[in-house]
Amino acid sequence: MTVASVAVVYHSRYGHTKVIAEQIAAGVRTAGDVAVEVVSVDELPEPGKDRSLGGKWNVLNQADGMIMGSATYMGDISSEFKQFMERSSGLWYGQAWKDKLAAGFTNSGALSGDKQSSLHSIVTFAGQHSMIWVSQGVMPSSYTNDGKNLNRLGAWTGFMSQSDNGGPDVTPGQADKDTAQAFGKRFGVAAIRWVKGRN
Amino acid sequence: MTVASVAVVYHSRYGHTKVIAEQIAAGVRTAGDVAVEVVSVDELPEPGKDRSLGGKWNVLNQADGMIMGSATYMGDISSEFKQFMERSSGLWYGQAWKDKLAAGFTNSGALSGDKQSSLHSIVTFAGQHSMIWVSQGVMPSSYTNDGKNLNRLGAWTGFMSQSDNGGPDVTPGQADKDTAQAFGKRFGVAAIRWVKGRN
Amino acid sequence: MTVASVAVVYHSRYGHTKVIAEQIAAGVRTAGDVAVEVVSVDELPEPGKDRSLGGKWNVLNQADGMIMGSATYMGDISSEFKQFMERSSGLWYGQAWKDKLAAGFTNSGALSGDKQSSLHSIVTFAGQHSMIWVSQGVMPSSYTNDGKNLNRLGAWTGFMSQSDNGGPDVTPGQADKDTAQAFGKRFGVAAIRWVKGRN
Amino acid sequence: MTVASVAVVYHSRYGHTKVIAEQIAAGVRTAGDVAVEVVSVDELPEPGKDRSLGGKWNVLNQADGMIMGSATYMGDISSEFKQFMERSSGLWYGQAWKDKLAAGFTNSGALSGDKQSSLHSIVTFAGQHSMIWVSQGVMPSSYTNDGKNLNRLGAWTGFMSQSDNGGPDVTPGQADKDTAQAFGKRFGVAAIRWVKGRN
Repeated sequence: MTVASVAVVYHSRYGHTKVIAEQIAAGVRTAGDVAVEVVSVDELPEPGKDRSLGGKWNVLNQADGMIMGSATYMGDISSEFKQFMERSSGLWYGQAWKDKLAAGFTNSGALSGDKQSSLHSIVTFAGQHSMIWVSQGVMPSSYTNDGKNLNRLGAWTGFMSQSDNGGPDVTPGQADKDTAQAFGKRFGVAAIRWVKGRN
Repeated sequence: MTVASVAVVYHSRYGHTKVIAEQIAAGVRTAGDVAVEVVSVDELPEPGKDRSLGGKWNVLNQADGMIMGSATYMGDISSEFKQFMERSSGLWYGQAWKDKLAAGFTNSGALSGDKQSSLHSIVTFAGQHSMIWVSQGVMPSSYTNDGKNLNRLGAWTGFMSQSDNGGPDVTPGQADKDTAQAFGKRFGVAAIRWVKGRN
Repeated sequence: MTVASVAVVYHSRYGHTKVIAEQIAAGVRTAGDVAVEVVSVDELPEPGKDRSLGGKWNVLNQADGMIMGSATYMGDISSEFKQFMERSSGLWYGQAWKDKLAAGFTNSGALSGDKQSSLHSIVTFAGQHSMIWVSQGVMPSSYTNDGKNLNRLGAWTGFMSQSDNGGPDVTPGQADKDTAQAFGKRFGVAAIRWVKGRN
Repeated sequence: MTVASVAVVYHSRYGHTKVIAEQIAAGVRTAGDVAVEVVSVDELPEPGKDRSLGGKWNVLNQADGMIMGSATYMGDISSEFKQFMERSSGLWYGQAWKDKLAAGFTNSGALSGDKQSSLHSIVTFAGQHSMIWVSQGVMPSSYTNDGKNLNRLGAWTGFMSQSDNGGPDVTPGQADKDTAQAFGKRFGVAAIRWVKGRN
């Protein structure tokens, strides 16, 4: 029986962040009775003039939690991801997402790379929607960059990955994918607990 | 029957933040079966050489959630509050607070006043401890500054209050105290739900 | 003789931020021998396939300093302003704006209103371009909200204004316009000094 | 002839950040006619009851620019560095440091490691003092972690270094030291330009 539902909402221009979104979703599924759907912000159109929401907005509105991610470009989330945020302003006004769980992730080419700014943007957005923020939760197994370590970059507010100069089929590497799965599982476990507590 | 326990941990140099901490605690109590204790960081001594924790550290360790607050001085949380954060590093290393609920608040003399930097510091700290962040959750009843409105400053990541040039017996005003209570109640309700969900 | 040139680059959806941009430009002009041009991000098109930059990109490329501003929507700069940032990525790659002066401003309906997140985004962006950041520089004459005080919101990283629920012809009020002018003048003075120092 | 004077102000608990402070100072010296002094916050005592400032406060007050750095502990600058910030509040009140140049750096054990929060704290503090912020300015020669690359972590607001689990005699590595020197030189060049422009 499905206890909780989770949406992974992301924007990816070159595919690296999409790969991470899918790994996170795979991790959520390992948490148990959780349904997961991966949604690109491209599938979330502008509200109609009557404020109606088409596309996949219902997936978000019906989810118990949302894991939100964007590549970091020029020091922040992408403009497409910011557009998604703004398209949610009617939902914000009505606080339709209040008390849903939220979490964030981002990818960029640099090890640090101002990625914390992107996580800051996402946690601020989740706060505006009065959501409950699930932190990253996976401790570094080491801080080296040998490709084998969980949370190798050392991020806690949300999940950070780093891609080299190559296609999404080869980078980010396995350590980041493993961390993405652990992060997704943590979120799924929290979602089940949060839904159960409501009853 | 007490379902959940909450600690309000704060640092206040002139008393304004302490008044807010107490209002938040009063709000938590209205949530139902929640025990609340207010702890100043002055009551949380440095760990002993054997890493033992004296004073009121146990209150924090046993709580299901912590609402953490500091006055904003020179654009960030106080040095005393930062010292508390650093004294928790052994607990962090063992992730002893993992999955506890957390929230943050701050007070300063200016309306905006770089208070968001303080909330950013507290949410980052909560992330390091792998805690679950409860956002402010109280929508502004208006954005005017007439002293009657909830969340009059417009803060969402955590709770902000503002004190005029006067003693803590007269400022912050009633609107901020009312918001503090609503914020505390929200946290208490979340704590009960989070504890129930564990079972 | 014109010593320095300054561009005010902004995005405004409802006109309030545009009014502030114009007030800032007026302030820059009072600094002395400074040429000022106000540019909306709508006038800065996507680079061509050959990476050529049309529209008013040359105004920015030739300026000695840029004052950048956006309304704050959903806790951050607008998606249109973020798009401008991303369109500058080729210039960033070549570090074409290195050592230009930069500053930031933002407007929103709430007194605090997560506006510091927008300033954080702009200062991070300016850092990526290796620019030199001119802080707000106008001390509050008081922290009250009676409409007469400079820097009434208490912002230092950049300039914040706040608009009530009304058209840009009536809000933000005179205190914010006066602060905008003082902030612009400060930037103009700094630009003259910075240009003179190069010689 | 000395044109400009620069102070490097830092806090270091285990010595890694001190090593970086000294490398930055060495870089400043290569900029030309600049005098540099390295000051630990331990040398900056609390103001006297008559608000008098002893110790090395005069070095800061007389400098044309300050490069400020702290290790990142628990997601932010150290409590000792925050204490230094608060001890400067009388200087802030009189805006004694207005228009001095400023820059920031931080070191921690993790590659990303919430170090951007520390830089955010320092740039916010510099804004409160109405200082002019000099960004990092050294582009990554690559984003790999092979120990040879400038700005290998990818930081722009200020300078980030990363130390492994070892003493300050062996870590941070040469790439970070080289970047520290380049960053220092950039600041020195800017200080000379800024001083010359005043005349």
